[in-house]
Amino acid sequence: MAENAAIAEVTKKVEEVVLDEHGQPLSKNALKKLEKEKLKKERAEKDALARAAQAAAKASATVDYSKEFYGKQAINQSADRPGRKHERLTDINASRAGEKVWIRARVQTSRPTGNKMCFFQFRQSSATIQGLVVFNDTTISKQMVKFAQNITSESIVLVEGTIAKPLEPVKSCTVQDAEITISQLFVTSEAQGRLPFNLEDASRPEADFEREDAQFSKVNLHTRLENRVFDFRTITNQAIFRVQAGVCKLFRDFLDSKGFMEIHTPKIIGAASEGGANVFKVKYFDTDAYLAQSPQFYKQMVVCGDFERVYEVGSVFRAENSFTHRHMTEFMGLDLEMAFEEHYHEILDVFDELFVYIFKGLEEQYAADLEIVHRQYPFEKFQYLPKTLRLEYKDAVALLRENGVEMGDFDDLSTETERKLGQLVKEKYHTDFFMLDKFPLAVRPFYTMPDPKNPGYSNSYDFFMRGEEILSGAQRIHDAELLIERAKEHEVDPESVKHYVDAFRMGAPPHGGGGIGLERVIFFYLNLGNIRRVSLFPRDPKRLFP
Amino acid sequence: MAENAAIAEVTKKVEEVVLDEHGQPLSKNALKKLEKEKLKKERAEKDALARAAQAAAKASATVDYSKEFYGKQAINQSADRPGRKHERLTDINASRAGEKVWIRARVQTSRPTGNKMCFFQFRQSSATIQGLVVFNDTTISKQMVKFAQNITSESIVLVEGTIAKPLEPVKSCTVQDAEITISQLFVTSEAQGRLPFNLEDASRPEADFEREDAQFSKVNLHTRLENRVFDFRTITNQAIFRVQAGVCKLFRDFLDSKGFMEIHTPKIIGAASEGGANVFKVKYFDTDAYLAQSPQFYKQMVVCGDFERVYEVGSVFRAENSFTHRHMTEFMGLDLEMAFEEHYHEILDVFDELFVYIFKGLEEQYAADLEIVHRQYPFEKFQYLPKTLRLEYKDAVALLRENGVEMGDFDDLSTETERKLGQLVKEKYHTDFFMLDKFPLAVRPFYTMPDPKNPGYSNSYDFFMRGEEILSGAQRIHDAELLIERAKEHEVDPESVKHYVDAFRMGAPPHGGGGIGLERVIFFYLNLGNIRRVSLFPRDPKRLFP
Repeated sequence: MAENAAIAEVTKKVEEVVLDEHGQPLSKNALKKLEKEKLKKERAEKDALARAAQAAAKASATVDYSKEFYGKQAINQSADRPGRKHERLTDINASRAGEKVWIRARVQTSRPTGNKMCFFQFRQSSATIQGLVVFNDTTISKQMVKFAQNITSESIVLVEGTIAKPLEPVKSCTVQDAEITISQLFVTSEAQGRLPFNLEDASRPEADFEREDAQFSKVNLHTRLENRVFDFRTITNQAIFRVQAGVCKLFRDFLDSKGFMEIHTPKIIGAASEGGANVFKVKYFDTDAYLAQSPQFYKQMVVCGDFERVYEVGSVFRAENSFTHRHMTEFMGLDLEMAFEEHYHEILDVFDELFVYIFKGLEEQYAADLEIVHRQYPFEKFQYLPKTLRLEYKDAVALLRENGVEMGDFDDLSTETERKLGQLVKEKYHTDFFMLDKFPLAVRPFYTMPDPKNPGYSNSYDFFMRGEEILSGAQRIHDAELLIERAKEHEVDPESVKHYVDAFRMGAPPHGGGGIGLERVIFFYLNLGNIRRVSLFPRDPKRLFP
Repeated sequence: MAENAAIAEVTKKVEEVVLDEHGQPLSKNALKKLEKEKLKKERAEKDALARAAQAAAKASATVDYSKEFYGKQAINQSADRPGRKHERLTDINASRAGEKVWIRARVQTSRPTGNKMCFFQFRQSSATIQGLVVFNDTTISKQMVKFAQNITSESIVLVEGTIAKPLEPVKSCTVQDAEITISQLFVTSEAQGRLPFNLEDASRPEADFEREDAQFSKVNLHTRLENRVFDFRTITNQAIFRVQAGVCKLFRDFLDSKGFMEIHTPKIIGAASEGGANVFKVKYFDTDAYLAQSPQFYKQMVVCGDFERVYEVGSVFRAENSFTHRHMTEFMGLDLEMAFEEHYHEILDVFDELFVYIFKGLEEQYAADLEIVHRQYPFEKFQYLPKTLRLEYKDAVALLRENGVEMGDFDDLSTETERKLGQLVKEKYHTDFFMLDKFPLAVRPFYTMPDPKNPGYSNSYDFFMRGEEILSGAQRIHDAELLIERAKEHEVDPESVKHYVDAFRMGAPPHGGGGIGLERVIFFYLNLGNIRRVSLFPRDPKRLFP
């Protein structure tokens, strides 16, 4: 149509010049010449038109018929709320084949196939699913496929697709009986630049790196911690921190059921309570203050204030300049303190039930997460007894001596001896968890109640998991005079702990408790080798970032 | 009986001398003389016997036949564990009359009646019961009554007694239909010296002190805080801190049910993240560190690490040199952060349900505690709507202007204006709780997402209870470039928040959240006038002890 119109136009122009500039008709020769020129011009114009038509045709072939179905989204500033449902991958399975769904997920990996296809692994937390974009004539253009192929790993995408049943189970994904045939694909937030390490490598079992044909590189702990936000995304870390939250929840649920009350004690304190060693100093307006090394004094004071059974989940600060596998300068304390009626073993009874409840709860409610962690960091199943073994210190010393360890009756345990003891106990009693009761008085803090029957010993205890200490506790001295006497023997100035001592002058029930290191419980339960793996943002003398 | 035996003995002796030393009977005279002497002797001996009998009788009257039934116990060092059951006062009632029980409790008050009786009020936490010691001839000696009368208030005692039904209900105690007839009474831990104040006075309704005939003295907040351990023992404080534990529990229970995960972020941080104002500095080995003013940056980073919904209950530190009724230098933050799918109002939806859940939970599960607090600090019942009112900032400004407050569109709210707004909202919408959305951008921190439709405003909100702010939150900027741009506009050096900004470079979901001040929620819900009343050991610029 356009072509005919163009020709008519040319003809019209030619007809116009049949008269000369003064309005007179042209001569025959002149007309013939003109005719010749006219034909020449017509040919040229026809050629031009043909070329234009060709170009137009070509252009129409590259028109992107998927333009509305893919692209980068503007930063979400909450401009609209269409109310579209986004699915969780864990809710998708073969029984829903044929359903059209929207999913927001990360691109874990993408694998282009020629210029007509792209496979994705999408991820939400620990769940993954396969998705694919396939070229077709009407809805998925080559441009769209190309766009898909260029999406960087770890970008967040919004996908519309149809749930399909794959020919074979997708073994590389957690959703194996379903995949997503993509119809729309938008990038919500793009991962920029080079990723700090390969996320798949960061989730591999340690053993993989020892294989001769290993084509991937091991991600060391330092690199992980320097890139912690990225590191969190490994399925193993997703599981580890769910387990951690689980331990806190089980701790509280059990104690709530036993009449304990949650408290929050101050972390900024006016005096370095335990002698001043290993304490962080804070500039507090015109004076100095300190960070609490434990909530112990305060929880005891609360017990003297008639909250008879209390617990706290709170930050604990230790200015220890050490770099071991199990020390951090800041960690979470799970503390409890309780008045008892007759004997401090009532406290051990509570702890016994508590730990068994936690271990059982982990097995029952967090089996899938434990399995995920186990895949990367294989660990022996944690063994414990329905009624926890209580070993007296003197018997532990005897057991160690029988097995070649040289030590005095009242010597403290070194980390190495603790581990040895853990081994011997495991062999003899088949448990990874036990209580060591009746520590020598001399190796415990001044506020520890002496054993009334066995001089040199005290009513205090540590608990061990896989041969490492995870809790320290005791019956406390609840008599002001005895406390002052013991403070002096430890060269602690009673004036420096006046508020604490005074709490026992207005009637104090016999009481005691203990502090559990949260990270240690997870770390030893999962046998992870380094406590930093179970702290979101671990702190040691050299690490303050991120 | 003993007296007759003595007389028989004397008679026997007299009969023996009727024969002389040679065995011959005596003469009549001699016999007469002897008879005389005998009578004299008999009289003397009778007198002696009478005196002895009198002395014996007197001695037997002062023998303490209750000796084993009372006394001061040695310091409990857990020497024994007899396994005796100690009752809770809350389990005692008239239906158990006649039962013999053991109770450990504090002596709240004692009232001697002559030298033969003593009434007690015993207390465990918020529960009280009457006990009485009454002299009798066989088991309760006068010595025991005297001992009972001398026990100091606030001492802890161990009591054996029989549950009895009093003639009239004991109105002064929480257990009204039963009392304890004491058979044994031991002091476990003695309250020494003068008590800092009268505990009963410390629990009186404020109105009592305004009565003309008031015979007691008001205990001011400073005195309470200086003697906090003692102060905890008032029934009101026992209730307040149970309510506080309740709010934490309700917060977590709700969020657990909505797929949130608990996290713990560091409180010692390497850079003063929000510009350095109001931040405490810590000496950290050879360098300086800071105390986190909120977990916000860290919880955002965790969200970028694919833990999509997280919460934290943790300490928050603010070096604000102010002494208002609602500021402390350390408090508990109930923080949450979540990725959202389409619009930040999804966060408001979660908060809305959360708060209604908490308010309902308090009413249903803590009614008794609320009632106790109400008795001392009467407060209007807290009003809230099943679906929380969401007011836009501009509409709040209009409402204020209509009511005579002069302010510009983009002015921040003063404490006074907030209160006024609270009043107006209460009148108009009948709620003590509402959300104020769309704050002016200029009054919010640099990381706040600007409103894309209304220039000058932002996607941020505060929540109010009784006209005072208890939560601040927003959609955060999740794009690194926009974040840097906004930081510069706020004169925050992007280098100083590098780890934070970098978290958004590897794909970040749109997200937001908020931080609730735990103490504020309790304080305003109960309308207690000063936030220090709801912190166990409050911290302000002048208070670091106890």
